[in-house]
Amino acid sequence: MHEQVDKLLINGTVVTMDAAATVYTQGAVAIRGRDIVAVGEVADLQARYSANQVIDCTDCAILPGLINGHAHVPMSLLRGMVSDYQQLDVWLFGYMFPVEGQFVTPAFSYIGARLSCAEMLRSGTTTFVDMYYYEEEVARAADESGMRAICGQTVLRMPSPDAPSYDVGIERARRFIEQWHTHDRIIPTIAPHAPYTCTDHIYHEAMELCAQFGVPLITHLSETSREVQESRAERDATPIGYANRVGAFDVPCIAAHCVHATEDDIVLLRQRGVGVVPCPSSNLKLASGVAPYDRLIKAGVHTGLGTDGPASNDDQDMFAEIHLAAMLPKGLGGDPMIMPARDALSLATSRGAQAIHLDHLIGSLVPGKRADVIVVELNHLHSAPRYTYSPDTIYSHLVYSVHSSDVRDVLVDGRMIVENRTLLTMDEREVMAQAQQIADQINVFLSSREENLLDKILAIGGVQQAEIFEIQVKARVTSADIERVEAMLRDPAIRVTKTSERMQYDTYFLFHKRERGRIRIREDRRIDPGARMDTKYTITLMAEADQGEYPYAMLLSRARYTARASQTLRFYREYFHPDHETEIEKHRRRWRILYKNKDFAINIDDLVGRQDNGPFLEIKGRTWGRRDADERATLIGELLERCGIRAEQLVKQEYVELEREG
Amino acid sequence: MHEQVDKLLINGTVVTMDAAATVYTQGAVAIRGRDIVAVGEVADLQARYSANQVIDCTDCAILPGLINGHAHVPMSLLRGMVSDYQQLDVWLFGYMFPVEGQFVTPAFSYIGARLSCAEMLRSGTTTFVDMYYYEEEVARAADESGMRAICGQTVLRMPSPDAPSYDVGIERARRFIEQWHTHDRIIPTIAPHAPYTCTDHIYHEAMELCAQFGVPLITHLSETSREVQESRAERDATPIGYANRVGAFDVPCIAAHCVHATEDDIVLLRQRGVGVVPCPSSNLKLASGVAPYDRLIKAGVHTGLGTDGPASNDDQDMFAEIHLAAMLPKGLGGDPMIMPARDALSLATSRGAQAIHLDHLIGSLVPGKRADVIVVELNHLHSAPRYTYSPDTIYSHLVYSVHSSDVRDVLVDGRMIVENRTLLTMDEREVMAQAQQIADQINVFLSSREENLLDKILAIGGVQQAEIFEIQVKARVTSADIERVEAMLRDPAIRVTKTSERMQYDTYFLFHKRERGRIRIREDRRIDPGARMDTKYTITLMAEADQGEYPYAMLLSRARYTARASQTLRFYREYFHPDHETEIEKHRRRWRILYKNKDFAINIDDLVGRQDNGPFLEIKGRTWGRRDADERATLIGELLERCGIRAEQLVKQEYVELEREG
Repeated sequence: MHEQVDKLLINGTVVTMDAAATVYTQGAVAIRGRDIVAVGEVADLQARYSANQVIDCTDCAILPGLINGHAHVPMSLLRGMVSDYQQLDVWLFGYMFPVEGQFVTPAFSYIGARLSCAEMLRSGTTTFVDMYYYEEEVARAADESGMRAICGQTVLRMPSPDAPSYDVGIERARRFIEQWHTHDRIIPTIAPHAPYTCTDHIYHEAMELCAQFGVPLITHLSETSREVQESRAERDATPIGYANRVGAFDVPCIAAHCVHATEDDIVLLRQRGVGVVPCPSSNLKLASGVAPYDRLIKAGVHTGLGTDGPASNDDQDMFAEIHLAAMLPKGLGGDPMIMPARDALSLATSRGAQAIHLDHLIGSLVPGKRADVIVVELNHLHSAPRYTYSPDTIYSHLVYSVHSSDVRDVLVDGRMIVENRTLLTMDEREVMAQAQQIADQINVFLSSREENLLDKILAIGGVQQAEIFEIQVKARVTSADIERVEAMLRDPAIRVTKTSERMQYDTYFLFHKRERGRIRIREDRRIDPGARMDTKYTITLMAEADQGEYPYAMLLSRARYTARASQTLRFYREYFHPDHETEIEKHRRRWRILYKNKDFAINIDDLVGRQDNGPFLEIKGRTWGRRDADERATLIGELLERCGIRAEQLVKQEYVELEREG
Repeated sequence: MHEQVDKLLINGTVVTMDAAATVYTQGAVAIRGRDIVAVGEVADLQARYSANQVIDCTDCAILPGLINGHAHVPMSLLRGMVSDYQQLDVWLFGYMFPVEGQFVTPAFSYIGARLSCAEMLRSGTTTFVDMYYYEEEVARAADESGMRAICGQTVLRMPSPDAPSYDVGIERARRFIEQWHTHDRIIPTIAPHAPYTCTDHIYHEAMELCAQFGVPLITHLSETSREVQESRAERDATPIGYANRVGAFDVPCIAAHCVHATEDDIVLLRQRGVGVVPCPSSNLKLASGVAPYDRLIKAGVHTGLGTDGPASNDDQDMFAEIHLAAMLPKGLGGDPMIMPARDALSLATSRGAQAIHLDHLIGSLVPGKRADVIVVELNHLHSAPRYTYSPDTIYSHLVYSVHSSDVRDVLVDGRMIVENRTLLTMDEREVMAQAQQIADQINVFLSSREENLLDKILAIGGVQQAEIFEIQVKARVTSADIERVEAMLRDPAIRVTKTSERMQYDTYFLFHKRERGRIRIREDRRIDPGARMDTKYTITLMAEADQGEYPYAMLLSRARYTARASQTLRFYREYFHPDHETEIEKHRRRWRILYKNKDFAINIDDLVGRQDNGPFLEIKGRTWGRRDADERATLIGELLERCGIRAEQLVKQEYVELEREG
């Protein structure tokens, strides 16, 4: 009496990853429909079942499909885009955000997700947890690929490629969940990005939405030590403590990274049943650190593993992550026994399933669970020879020797998706060609941008163009001259609209090719008594000037672009790669005046650390119009005469051109 | 006018790894005989050369063959043999040494080396540096495979599988070098294992031999922090300082690991031009730590990378090592810019060649160097899409995305060794089958040994069998009894041959299956005034006893095996995996006596920490003969009578069976 099943995998080493860590060295798995019906010795299962399809797995291991607990799959399109000598902020604000802002569309998310699904399936991953924009496109790609996925629509307080504001983002997420939540393999949800990019309100709304639809909440927590530090300062809580406070753990939560979880955090994560998903490669590559894998496991926290986005990894190879999770705790903990291969493997299987709240369905080869199964070849040079004196040796082989390229077959829900290394649900070449098309566009965007400082400064946002004509005169002055200037300013013909006293610290980025222009980063601090003590940071791109000289004034015509400098000097340095850098520090008294109905700035500057310290008088006007520029030049001549400045006092050089003090 | 060459590789991205880090995105390499003739743009080289064979490398990168700077290639046969919950000493003394002692033969070295050469070639390694036993067999296998290698005959002060003493080892090395030193691809040399396993003399002899033949010296230095600590205590120098002192750096030296090199060491390594070869995977897996890659490079030390033996890795995949070398410094140094991909790649190419003192021949694609070249496919899902806006992006692709399975072609000395993923110099299946044959024998050895404590204790060496019959009686005594015993000992019928007073700390390993026997580890410390204060450590395996009772004495017949316990208690615990453990601490006064020409031991014992503390009297005899045992049993009865011990005082239990206090 043979019971009928659909598929019978035979003759492989079945690594069940069940609670007893059962291994069948000559094992078999019986599958009916989408479910595992039986797991055991070959002889036993062959005696009990008759199968429509018998799959011989001689020289192979049969494992639960791997679980990638944290990903941003569309970002496969950005893999390898940025060199690894960029800091995180340059990488993010200088490259990722500009490129994402420019290129992330529904098609981007769909094509990137397809590429990633293909890559993950070919390397043995059957389930992934995602967080990105246009997540409905990720869901569609995952569904078509045959994979299982939890797809989180990213929400953050800033505008994102798919939502001009977070209200819109939350609404998008709601519609996405409504549309997909009855799907059998795809779980749609919302993913508040992280405490440092969200608000209490966003977390609260996300939690309500998850509770309403019974879906898990995905977020990033405690990825970097800086994040933890800042969270403590701003919210008097670690990011994990904060997430708990704003309700993120009131629903099943999947928390990516948690690299810098404290001991208290770990207790909290366990108590609240939070799934924790570190990403070993990404955490190393972005210099975030190494998650406390062994302590998480020891504490009973549901711990998984993820690849993170391919832009910071750069592949989506769970075998590589398992390998790192096995290696890092040993090397850093000084104890080779701290993370046995079996535990490392569990992070992508049995424990990984707990971490994403799907352990009732997947993570181990157990009758009744879904037939997400992979077949991995063990007959390659790098896995030879094989030791079998202890059933435990299979874990060493799988964790330390096997490569993702050894994956032969992949089944999800009992359906064969990869058969003998061939992906059945997609055309790999077509997927890669579509991906390359988008990369080619980005290649063009970045190539031109790298040469053009304007594009580069525009890419980081908030930039405004300033008046293109500057009329300015500079003169070396004496204290007697300065007294005459002050007297002039009391003349009723001149109306002083603003006065200030300030210290200005300017850093100039200079380039060998002068036609590229120069970048000035200015720290401008008011020091006049009673003035608001705010410091202004501006970044200005000044194109090379066309200079036209008037009798007294110098006309400079050039494009100037300016923005609030929201990044650090180091950021800009690494972003713009100047060939040369110089600094100007000056004390400036400034008067904004109206003279014959035109506005001018009058500066008395003392430089610091230059051979020629001044003081200098500057009179400046700015305008968009050429004729207006001519008129202002004439008026500047009049102002010079009024305070008795002689031609020989004039200085043609800019401050940045004056020599430094020996 | 076309110049004739043998091979022209065209249309690949040529990553030269030359001093200027030149990359030709549409590049070509021309090869004549064993040498690189030209490297450049495709169009340029096609205009200049006519080739017997044109190899199209579209969608591929063309790189210098990778250099594995430290390996023990025959150990591929032991890959995955030991589970990773074993400490280094258990791994080494409990498994590696016994198995090596039993199985390492010339055939072992040859077959293991063949397997490793096959694996290395298929994953893009063209040169390796080795250190093992029967190294002439490694040289033969490497030569036949077509690889380039530096083969070091291991010498250490202890007996090794190929040399009963180090003099023999040094002589073997000399003959090996004499035989091979004119070979073009194989450089034979001597490899003093490490400071902690060698003597000054060995290092000195090795250095002389290297100087005589102009070959580099290979050794292990500063692999673990403990090694450094012990070296400082014993030799008042770090292992690196010591190696310098004994002349190891007077010849070109290749120093493996150097994980724990100090700042002073790093200066010394640079000054002496020592090549340093950390092994990222092995250093992590064995919990040795992470080498200071970035500081070594910054200091100008010639730094390479190695896989170490496959028993501690477990593969021989230089792409994986490059990947780790790129990732670890970032993650641990908190700086994502600390080790750019290009630098990581250089460790296995240009810098790696310096580290093994072969940079005049290999390590970069430069005209005049040997044509050791690999072709790596970039058209796989995990490397898609490709960014080309900066020539630097290729390094990210190669280091973070490419897998060793993407290696398509491998040339050594201009000869095609791997072509389109097929190894031309060996039959992979045959190599694996031969390797499996040996593994099968080891499987049998280990399977039986795991069950049999005797095999297990014999495996770690120095064990002797003791007399199989013990006749012993134990009695609970009073101080009056003890006075009577002391009186008896003054009786002229009894001759006291030795007296002592000691503290004995016994740890018993007990097993559920009593027939497996039990293990006792004893720390035995003399405390009698004037006695030598040495502490003896012994390990004893006691098989389950056949007990036969005499009127007074109890006869125990059992196999006993004993050895000096040279390892720690923890070692034995992890090695034997007892199901249960108990401790006995006792104060013992002991008399060795002759009575009627037979020797007995008389003990007065006070136990510590047991409910029944004693004192106890023990009278014991041991013998190999049954009849002798009978006679001794009778004599023990006489001795008991002489000191008036009554039957009801006798104790049948062994100390280990007495209950613990509270």
